Parts: sequence; structure tokens; C-alpha cells
Amino acid sequence: MLERPFRLGGVAGVLWAAEAATDAAPLLLMGHGGGLHARHPGLVGRARAAVMRDGFTVVAIDSPGHGERPRSDEDQRWVDAMVLARDAGRPIAGIVSEFNGSLAERAVPEWRATLDALQALPEVEPDVSVGFQGMTLASEIGIRLAAQDARITAAIFGGVFASDELLDAASRVTIPVEILLPWDDAELGRESGLALFDAFGSSDKTLHVFPGSHFRVPEAQVDTRFFARHLRR
Amino acid sequence: MLERPFRLGGVAGVLWAAEAATDAAPLLLMGHGGGLHARHPGLVGRARAAVMRDGFTVVAIDSPGHGERPRSDEDQRWVDAMVLARDAGRPIAGIVSEFNGSLAERAVPEWRATLDALQALPEVEPDVSVGFQGMTLASEIGIRLAAQDARITAAIFGGVFASDELLDAASRVTIPVEILLPWDDAELGRESGLALFDAFGSSDKTLHVFPGSHFRVPEAQVDTRFFARHLRR
Repeated sequence: MLERPFRLGGVAGVLWAAEAATDAAPLLLMGHGGGLHARHPGLVGRARAAVMRDGFTVVAIDSPGHGERPRSDEDQRWVDAMVLARDAGRPIAGIVSEFNGSLAERAVPEWRATLDALQALPEVEPDVSVGFQGMTLASEIGIRLAAQDARITAAIFGGVFASDELLDAASRVTIPVEILLPWDDAELGRESGLALFDAFGSSDKTLHVFPGSHFRVPEAQVDTRFFARHLRR
Repeated sequence: MLERPFRLGGVAGVLWAAEAATDAAPLLLMGHGGGLHARHPGLVGRARAAVMRDGFTVVAIDSPGHGERPRSDEDQRWVDAMVLARDAGRPIAGIVSEFNGSLAERAVPEWRATLDALQALPEVEPDVSVGFQGMTLASEIGIRLAAQDARITAAIFGGVFASDELLDAASRVTIPVEILLPWDDAELGRESGLALFDAFGSSDKTLHVFPGSHFRVPEAQVDTRFFARHLRR
């Protein structure tokens, strides 16, 4: 397996591919959760599994202020507010949602530029099939990305609060989607998860509900057959 | 592949197995939906796929008054009431639920006797691992069966109304379960499906929600990795 770190502007990323990958190997964009980064062990494990199981080429990048990228003063204020609220036993979903929304506005153009650069590589077909997978912060980013960029043709999302902005973005997403909803996440709330599922404009959409909070998505809940079914070779 | 029809008392059934099956091949009991039978093409297709994909031995039996089994006068009255209600545009979930409950009370002992007979075969290990899969009527039967018979160790259910009796049975089911919930089934209702999911006593449970009615469960919604993960060899 190839593991190739790259840098595009100020954005650090990693590409994983099979040694024998052809230019028709579908691209799977993998987002990391809030506070994590593109080299987080959970993400790396999922990326390597997708290469080995399905022959996909997988790409991850660090979100603004995550991984190797310095956190801005403004972002630090969001983080401080989150920690304060949590310590005081106050709800944090609103703060997380606003913070993630701000990060997502910055991250979407970075993902699009990454995709431009990937499609310009000789190892990648220009009209290669592209999927997106990622929970929490990555869903905040991915849902907006899928609403704006028709190159994304299938996606797995979950563990994200249904703000008005996100509901609006979801309504403009019409590709096949699989949504994960942890059923006992007091912060996110069941109603928010059901509303987000309802909002997607996709006719081919599935919601996977399972006990527990969004900090512990069981790997078995992600239906790994999904991208194999939807990404074209 | 072996396809062996059998008859046990007044109950007709079919067994599918790999030519090379050992006595440790897990058993998958497949129930048919209301109005269908053990040789319905959809069921046969799923059974053959499970044999070929996972090496399971699959067994299906006709429910009371279904397939080759004559319908009693009492059952005919349920069917007539259902048709009348549907033609009059009245809700039928209540009638279907009562009818299915009555059929299930009769069908559970038949499934248990079938399982006894299978375990007595030299081709089947006495403590073989057993799963159950089936929607609508088959779920009405299977949920009660799993609540009563500890030999069932994993199950896929769905498309069934959450009557008090069924909620009670579900609360006594603690094995891993995967539940399918068609999101736009006006007869069953979303609340009923969510209540049934909540009722299961299982810590390992997943709900798959998808657009459409229970008459058209997309095959892709059944996560075929489920039994491969949970049935012991």
C-alpha cells in the first residue's frame, strides 16, 4: 500500500492507494472529527481498510486549526467557550455547531482545491468517481461540500447537530447518503438527527440508529458495502 | 447447492445448504411476509444468497394458513376484514397486527419444533448457532420466538406494528438485532417503529431507516454482514 503525505497551500494531507491502483480507482475523501486530524489512528485504520477491501484511493486533509495547522485566536475563543460550557454543565451543541459551521466555511474550498489537484494527477482519471465519509466536524464540512460540488456522488455522514444552515445544505444534497445517528447522545438529540435525515434531498438515503453517544460510533455501524455499491469504476 | 423440501406434522418447509456444508454451518431461519410463503421468489433468492455468500444453512416454513396450508374460517374472517377496511380507505394496521399476533401464537411452537428436528439431524451440530430473519408477519413471529427461545442468537426484523404484546416481547429480546424501518409507511407510522426499536432489550441493536413503504424493502438495506458477524461457526 502507498501512503503519500502531501501539502497544498497551507493544508497538510495524506493519500493512501493500492500499489496496483489504476487511474479509475474511485476516490474516497475521509474527514476527521472535531479535535482530531488526518493522521488520527481511527481514520488511518478506516482509510487502509477501504484501500485493501475495495481498492479505493483514500485522501484525508487536516481541517483549519487541526493537526499540524495552527489554531487562530478566534478559533481558540470557540474552544474556550466550549470547555467553559462543558465544565459548567451547560449544553454545548449550539457552540459546537457554530464553531463547526465556521470551520466548514473555510474547509469546503480547501477540499475543492484538493479535489482539483487530485484530478490533475496523471494517476487519477479526470472524471473519477468520488465519495465522502466523516462524522461530526467532517459531516458539517462534507454536507456543505456535497451541496456545492457535484463531483461528490455518495457520502456517509453522522453525529452532527441540525442547524438551519446544515438543514438547508442537506436539502440541496441529492446523492445517495448513509447517515449515522447515535440514539443516546443527549447533546445532539434524537429530533435533530431525524430532522437532518428528513432534510436530505436524496431519494436513496438510509439512517442507521444505534445505542450510544457520538463519541463511540461502532465500526460495524458503517456499512462498508455502501461505497462499493455507489462509486463507479 | 442442496434444496430439500420437508414436512413436519402439518407444516411444509424447505432447507437450503451448501453441498460442502459441515455440521457447524450456522442455521438461518427465514420467515416469509404476510400473504406469502416459504417458496416465494424473494425469500428463495435471499436464502440462496445466504448459502452462497456465508455458507449458512437456511430454513423456511409456511406460516399457518399460508402457502400449502389451508386457511381456517377464522383466518378468512381476518382477511375479509382487512380487505373491507382497505377498500373503505380505513386504517388496517390494527387488524393486521391482531391477525399477525394470532398467527404468531400458532407459528412460534412450529418454529421451535422445526428447530428441535433440525438439531436432531446428524448433519446439524446440536448447539449450532441460529439466526432469524424476516419482515412483517415474520417479524411478528420472530420477535416472540426470540423472546421465548434462547437458541436464537441474532435477528433481523422490520415492517411490523408495535402492539403492546410485541413491545413486551421485544423487551425480553436481548440478542443483537437489526431493525428495518420504512420511513413513509403511513399504515405503520414512524412512532411505532421507533418505539419498537427502543423496546428491544438488546445492547447491540441497530435501526435502519429508509424512504418508502414496507412493501418495498430495498435489498441493500439488509446488512448482510450482520449474521456473518454474529453467528458462530
